[in-house]
Amino acid sequence: MYYIGIDVGGMSIKAGVTDKEGNVLHKTTLETRGGYTKEYTISNDIHLLIVKLLSEAGIPESEIAAVGIGQAGSIDSERGIINYWNNIPMKKVHVTEEMRKWHSFPVFIDNDANVAALGECVFGAAKGLKNVLLITLGTGVGSGIIIDGKIYRGEYGAGAEAGHMGIIMGGEPCTCGRRGCWEAYASVSALIRQTKAAMAEHPESSMNDVARDMGEVNGMTAFKAARAGDETALKVVERYERYVAEGLISLQNIFRPQMFLIGGGISKEGEYLTAPLEKMVYDGMFDKETGDGLKIRPAALHNDAGILGAAALAIRSIK
Amino acid sequence: MYYIGIDVGGMSIKAGVTDKEGNVLHKTTLETRGGYTKEYTISNDIHLLIVKLLSEAGIPESEIAAVGIGQAGSIDSERGIINYWNNIPMKKVHVTEEMRKWHSFPVFIDNDANVAALGECVFGAAKGLKNVLLITLGTGVGSGIIIDGKIYRGEYGAGAEAGHMGIIMGGEPCTCGRRGCWEAYASVSALIRQTKAAMAEHPESSMNDVARDMGEVNGMTAFKAARAGDETALKVVERYERYVAEGLISLQNIFRPQMFLIGGGISKEGEYLTAPLEKMVYDGMFDKETGDGLKIRPAALHNDAGILGAAALAIRSIK
Repeated sequence: MYYIGIDVGGMSIKAGVTDKEGNVLHKTTLETRGGYTKEYTISNDIHLLIVKLLSEAGIPESEIAAVGIGQAGSIDSERGIINYWNNIPMKKVHVTEEMRKWHSFPVFIDNDANVAALGECVFGAAKGLKNVLLITLGTGVGSGIIIDGKIYRGEYGAGAEAGHMGIIMGGEPCTCGRRGCWEAYASVSALIRQTKAAMAEHPESSMNDVARDMGEVNGMTAFKAARAGDETALKVVERYERYVAEGLISLQNIFRPQMFLIGGGISKEGEYLTAPLEKMVYDGMFDKETGDGLKIRPAALHNDAGILGAAALAIRSIK
Repeated sequence: MYYIGIDVGGMSIKAGVTDKEGNVLHKTTLETRGGYTKEYTISNDIHLLIVKLLSEAGIPESEIAAVGIGQAGSIDSERGIINYWNNIPMKKVHVTEEMRKWHSFPVFIDNDANVAALGECVFGAAKGLKNVLLITLGTGVGSGIIIDGKIYRGEYGAGAEAGHMGIIMGGEPCTCGRRGCWEAYASVSALIRQTKAAMAEHPESSMNDVARDMGEVNGMTAFKAARAGDETALKVVERYERYVAEGLISLQNIFRPQMFLIGGGISKEGEYLTAPLEKMVYDGMFDKETGDGLKIRPAALHNDAGILGAAALAIRSIK
């Protein structure tokens, strides 16, 4: 039997058919066209994509054990409902119910940060572990929490928003309307703000050259210049890492997971990012005596993370 | 069948025999004598207390289904070991193993904050709920986390230390050695510091009279004067509640529990404490649209909280 993983993004929907070891046998894509109505919802697009995928792969529907969907936004996975998604505004789409009209296999849906964390536990850097936190550093700070091998969602799936824990009461404004959230300091958007401010203050810093070559200031600008030894860039990176570590210390003290994973584009910095983080968090954590330390690793599933996470949701949900 | 709940404190060990509905049929106490050796550990005292309890209650050992122990300090509940306790320094006592020498019933041990949270879910203010956080405001800030009806402990039982999440990076020094922890602002010790500072700055405040009458400044001083309308005291209480709320907002966004409970002596302030907290946390929380709001309630098990929490551990562990 095979599984289908579907990754619904702001620009496109990706789908892949996998075996239970996480090999992607075939994958395909559909542009997210938007313009959904009450009658033609995103479920119709997902349905179309599944039919296309199976046709291209030459696999009959009877060979599919289950389908998993990873979707940004507020997802009520228990009831199979997209409650809200701000990229393409739509409210209350009963995805799993709508899919039953067309398909006989079971369909499961969950938040994309949650399925990414599960994917890492089933196929990735935390393979076989049961208590793991995946922190995704991107436009915001996302979190996926795996407890006892299962996704932790909170009431109505509204939990696992560790990006909105506070680290500096009354500090920088956050997109959520509050001040001082971790996301306001540790997101890549925040890093870009921090980089731009340091560049303006230090026109001699080679970050200015890096940005000119790249055509923009992005999450890599400071890291690239820091790796080349630029002092201002080193300070930007170190301060950014202190912000990331501050939130990780809180999460370490609350959860004591077996492993933290860092995801998002910035995780490609690898150990250059995670090794100093591990030291900072270890220095600040409560009760160092007990247990065997702390593991912070880059997430391992890069390009197919969305598909494999969703496939992992399908695999774990029918068990 | 009956259950025994044992509450090991710094000054005394309390034991009670209960039925499965949480009625305490009989209870008794033993002073914690300390002076433990490798041969005579705290297990010997617990054993003595159990024999005394059953003798006084006239209940044969064969009628006891299980025993639960709630104990401060670092407890490895899976292995039944007290790893460390700073009140009476002792390391690595294999309580459950030692108890097997004398008794045939199963014995379970866990951290006191954890069993208190479980007790509230089984017998108290959160009866029947499955996802609950109990925050104990006392000398420090303790936390017990119930997920899916079970105690969440983290690796080696070293998690659930929400008092040591940060709320103000680089802020007030904390007993853990770090700066800016929630405990450094929201514990009753912190409230007393905040009260004393305001009293010194405002000699006209009636907090000074309240303290004189009580013979000391304690966690009630500001609350008592605030209830009587003292302006400085109202400001102390409001600021303290903002600190408590700041940590609760983080925990709400991470966990989205069904209910928060506030424990510790200060919980006797009841709704005077929890109603403004509920409003502050609601105002700051992420995604108000989803779900049905937020519940913050005072813990309900007061005097017998330790015994009933430990009995709840016994009941849930043998299920």
